[in-house]
Amino acid sequence: MSILEHSHREPPYKKVHREAMRLLRELLSVPDTHDILFMQGGARAQFAFVPMNLLPVGKSADYVVTGTWAKGAFEEAGVVAKMQGASVRQVSSTEVEGRFTRVPTQSELSFAPDAAYAHITSNNTLFGTQWASYPDTGGVPLFADMTSDLCSRKIDVSKFGLIYAGAQKNVGPSGVTIVIVSKDLVASGRKDIPQIFQYRVMSKNESLFNTPPTFSIHVMKETLVELSKKGGIEALEAEATKKSSMIYDRLDARPQFYRGPVEKASRSKMNVVFRLPTEDLEKKFLKEAEAKQLVGLKGHRSVGGVRASLYTAVPVASVEALGAFMDTFASENDR
Amino acid sequence: MSILEHSHREPPYKKVHREAMRLLRELLSVPDTHDILFMQGGARAQFAFVPMNLLPVGKSADYVVTGTWAKGAFEEAGVVAKMQGASVRQVSSTEVEGRFTRVPTQSELSFAPDAAYAHITSNNTLFGTQWASYPDTGGVPLFADMTSDLCSRKIDVSKFGLIYAGAQKNVGPSGVTIVIVSKDLVASGRKDIPQIFQYRVMSKNESLFNTPPTFSIHVMKETLVELSKKGGIEALEAEATKKSSMIYDRLDARPQFYRGPVEKASRSKMNVVFRLPTEDLEKKFLKEAEAKQLVGLKGHRSVGGVRASLYTAVPVASVEALGAFMDTFASENDR
Repeated sequence: MSILEHSHREPPYKKVHREAMRLLRELLSVPDTHDILFMQGGARAQFAFVPMNLLPVGKSADYVVTGTWAKGAFEEAGVVAKMQGASVRQVSSTEVEGRFTRVPTQSELSFAPDAAYAHITSNNTLFGTQWASYPDTGGVPLFADMTSDLCSRKIDVSKFGLIYAGAQKNVGPSGVTIVIVSKDLVASGRKDIPQIFQYRVMSKNESLFNTPPTFSIHVMKETLVELSKKGGIEALEAEATKKSSMIYDRLDARPQFYRGPVEKASRSKMNVVFRLPTEDLEKKFLKEAEAKQLVGLKGHRSVGGVRASLYTAVPVASVEALGAFMDTFASENDR
Repeated sequence: MSILEHSHREPPYKKVHREAMRLLRELLSVPDTHDILFMQGGARAQFAFVPMNLLPVGKSADYVVTGTWAKGAFEEAGVVAKMQGASVRQVSSTEVEGRFTRVPTQSELSFAPDAAYAHITSNNTLFGTQWASYPDTGGVPLFADMTSDLCSRKIDVSKFGLIYAGAQKNVGPSGVTIVIVSKDLVASGRKDIPQIFQYRVMSKNESLFNTPPTFSIHVMKETLVELSKKGGIEALEAEATKKSSMIYDRLDARPQFYRGPVEKASRSKMNVVFRLPTEDLEKKFLKEAEAKQLVGLKGHRSVGGVRASLYTAVPVASVEALGAFMDTFASENDR
């Protein structure tokens, strides 16, 4: 029988499930103070589950808006807040004319001391920005959507109340969502919401309350084995730095030709966004890149240009090939 | 690139996604009046999503309790009803001393004419009961959890307001949930709940509002191809009848040895539950069966005994082998 066929209640699957949890705990040095949960519905579902569990009646939560997903999290939390007699507040937004080119500096952030939590989006895929270091919330529990950079950088989990991430960027296939949450918060969560949404119920049942997405978790486990073999989180972070530098160095070497809209201090190591002098040149770049099997480089429709996503599964050699292509393309087209 | 690696926004995946929907629509003759949605979270999440979407303030919904999952759906709906100023009502329960041996007859069912909907569980996996025909609700929209018998029987979808099913029993791997829902109900659903829970949002976005569980949907598509090749839903129903009869005929032939607790009119074609004269004999049966590679036959801990689950993936030959083993075991042990 394949793992796809096994019941989630039987030892062959449970072994996979527990090993995935153990490997993730080891890779990210998750302390005993925090639970690891496997859930379904992606980050989008967490946009709702987080306030449903952890935004009590009469309290407010602070949201930092740094991109499309951060805004989605804020808006969905607003709907939940209204449902349950609580509120949400936008602490800061770096939006300028519908775009984001940076994350805020500490001096721009003023969290409410009695906020239930402060929510940030660690890496902003569309706009290519990332928090190089995480903000000081002054004691307010820090929550982060790390969908697009979990397992690509060293983090001090003890500094976070809650971290969530759809697995599909760096850790496995779509269909499974990782939640790392402090046991204190789990215990404090609302009990008057559906069981299936409760972190408490997931934690108590080892994320086996209902049938989990078994195959997605199996592939995540295999991915975690591979990531661990690379030398742990320090090695993964070094690789992310190396890969993104290969592209950023090219932008910095030819700033008139490859224009990076993102402020240097906010540059993402996961998604490198850049523009060319004209849209025609961008089209030509994408077309010639594709002919060299360099695919998936088109920027999001709301941003345009080029976006190189450098998730853990992208080999260094692929980024080297992209860099070499960028050099050739620039020398042929930069007049 | 494997389907596991493709973006859900790109043609290679979208083709799989749409083909899965088309095959399901064809296999179940889903009329144009109904949408097909692919969601996450299993039937358990639908226990909450259904009333969140379709139980308006001040209204009540009727639930028929025929087993553990039906009770779970009723209880979770109660939590949601309380959250949103609505109510739920248990129309009927066939529970006797913690067990269920039948589904109710039409005469036992009295639905409230103004109920928002009437909810049933089509097949009850733990107790081995199934609705042979669906109840007349007198115009109240009929909702059914078909997790464990969807695609194993011909259904008239037009008679249902909503059908939902975790795919993992008959249609594919865990991680994807099928929802078939009338477009009128989708349009009438609440708009003041999180977007990710809204049938409206899923429908409008072709179930691509957020990243779907792409690989699970791919395997579901492949499964639907295989099910279609078997000759459509009539052939699948005939096979389910044939397989379950092989076991029920043995129970009826030796009622002193193989005791079926389920009333004949409520017998499930998916899960055949039976007891042996003593628990020692049941243990011996399971052990000797396992030695013949007949596995997964242990009854649920709340019921005991033996349970043969005969989902679409179980070949007729496997059921024949179980039947032959039952004959041998009975002749060796029935004194």
